[in-house]
Amino acid sequence: MDREGQLVEKIARAVPSVSARKNFRGVPLGIGDDAAILSPHGRTDWVLSCDAFLEGVHFLANAHPPDSVGYKSLARATSDLAAMGATPRYFVLTLALPSSKVGKWLDAFLAGMGRAARTLKMRLIGGDTTRNSTVSISVTVLGEVPRGRALTRSGANPGDLVYVTGRLGRAQLGLDLIRNKLSRRRELQNSLTAHLYPQIRVKLGEWLARNRIPSAMMDISDGLSTDLARLCSAGGVGARIDSSRVPRVTIPAGLSRSLKKLKLNPLQMALHGGDDYEFLFTVPRSRAQRLRRAPGYSEITAIGEITRSRRILLIGDDGTASPLASGGWEPFSHK
Amino acid sequence: MDREGQLVEKIARAVPSVSARKNFRGVPLGIGDDAAILSPHGRTDWVLSCDAFLEGVHFLANAHPPDSVGYKSLARATSDLAAMGATPRYFVLTLALPSSKVGKWLDAFLAGMGRAARTLKMRLIGGDTTRNSTVSISVTVLGEVPRGRALTRSGANPGDLVYVTGRLGRAQLGLDLIRNKLSRRRELQNSLTAHLYPQIRVKLGEWLARNRIPSAMMDISDGLSTDLARLCSAGGVGARIDSSRVPRVTIPAGLSRSLKKLKLNPLQMALHGGDDYEFLFTVPRSRAQRLRRAPGYSEITAIGEITRSRRILLIGDDGTASPLASGGWEPFSHK
Repeated sequence: MDREGQLVEKIARAVPSVSARKNFRGVPLGIGDDAAILSPHGRTDWVLSCDAFLEGVHFLANAHPPDSVGYKSLARATSDLAAMGATPRYFVLTLALPSSKVGKWLDAFLAGMGRAARTLKMRLIGGDTTRNSTVSISVTVLGEVPRGRALTRSGANPGDLVYVTGRLGRAQLGLDLIRNKLSRRRELQNSLTAHLYPQIRVKLGEWLARNRIPSAMMDISDGLSTDLARLCSAGGVGARIDSSRVPRVTIPAGLSRSLKKLKLNPLQMALHGGDDYEFLFTVPRSRAQRLRRAPGYSEITAIGEITRSRRILLIGDDGTASPLASGGWEPFSHK
Repeated sequence: MDREGQLVEKIARAVPSVSARKNFRGVPLGIGDDAAILSPHGRTDWVLSCDAFLEGVHFLANAHPPDSVGYKSLARATSDLAAMGATPRYFVLTLALPSSKVGKWLDAFLAGMGRAARTLKMRLIGGDTTRNSTVSISVTVLGEVPRGRALTRSGANPGDLVYVTGRLGRAQLGLDLIRNKLSRRRELQNSLTAHLYPQIRVKLGEWLARNRIPSAMMDISDGLSTDLARLCSAGGVGARIDSSRVPRVTIPAGLSRSLKKLKLNPLQMALHGGDDYEFLFTVPRSRAQRLRRAPGYSEITAIGEITRSRRILLIGDDGTASPLASGGWEPFSHK
């Protein structure tokens, strides 16, 4: 067997996968041939998304554990499926690595990716491996949703309530800790989790789609202020957000001076921090009552409402409104 | 609109695509949302493959025209679909670029990719864009094939005839010209085409699958010697190849000394050169007669036969057999 073949076998052993030889339901052919084959039954829609995860851009080779790189590269791509209300099913992986990372680093990477695949109940069905001077990962994910039920960005209407899940800015805190070399402190480990191993709310997404609750939905990957602007732009609407209601990261109390020196601002982190992979969605008032039956309802917060005016306003504690400018991470803005 | 949004619009204008707003047959939602939506009708199989195309690995930023980078990144991924007998339909693109390449370079890249998409009758349905220090491209392609008819690597049987399309080693010649800075010579332009703008034999692949002619098929991306070993390994068989019958690149005649100095060996280039994207397939003798009706039959050559012994042998002009070792390009073998 050639080296590429050996590498493919290594990946297939570490990550739940469909090989070329076993006939898995709906997948007559998986990894190991020119392409994978899917036999969809034609009663559901399929949802497809891809995501790049690059050394030096999305993670730092010497600061991020390879286990997290593997976990997060799959989880963040899958977040796009969950935010459409789809059930994640399959993924294909392009993986470019320097030869120095083919040993221990790759093993840990695959262990993390395998854990994400098991948690998200996904299987690898194909890929492409190559050498490169830096680690370059691209993941394409496929999910299934009842026909016509996928949740898109574009349906928000004036008067709809705006909701988010979880507490925002948690991933930003983890990144700040890593950037300031505080990531090894034992008491801060919990604060790293959202950044290193983001949880994807698959069950909630499925429930919302099946029950047709949201008028629009997306995941928050580049920060609330940036992604809310995208959702509003797609719907031709605006929004008023109540700053006091935005659920935000808790800064660990009783901490060392070094953390205090960072002067972290939880509201700013919640508004502009990226990488949270929480949901942002809008719900017509007539359906708001039904939302209470959602799985994990206690982690859902109403933060404002959609307006006819296309402006996006943040209402401060004193009741004054100011424009909420997009501040999240954007490609090509740094170099 | 944010910068990522502007970039996505630029891509969608340059490349045939399905946007989030027009409902294209079978694609209720294209680029611009979290994910694309497909509504397969359940009467065909879908074939899925992904391919990385990286600066410094698959192309050189200062030697390869951006138009070729765009064309080839889509064409080579699509070759995997054609080699399964599928009709190419859609693709998603992850594109990472330094900001220095967002202007003219990107325009030319997109023009090339657009040309490939029109030639191959494919539409872009989604993607992810990001900044990076080097150009890093990953393309996932989707194609459709009559249910159960996809051609795989694994079905070759002893006695089957081995065929290839085209003349092999042509892409290697183009690469050699570029490496030796001979790519600007006017009389050599034709010799560059196979390397820069590989043609994908979609029609032949479709015909072969629909008529169930081959017992096994794949594309030759890493060289005949490497890919034949993969096909034989997948089928648990071996092969005897008649070296005199291997169709090979023509070295341009009457050329400058600089080209002669390269001492190019057409047979070696045909056996081990990569990037040709021609087909390699096997046909039971009982179906060989029907192959004559294939579109482009004149470009199909029988080069040997499949054997029960798992060895892969090359029969020389004098009738002696020697093992044919895999010599094609392999990831991770260089650094």
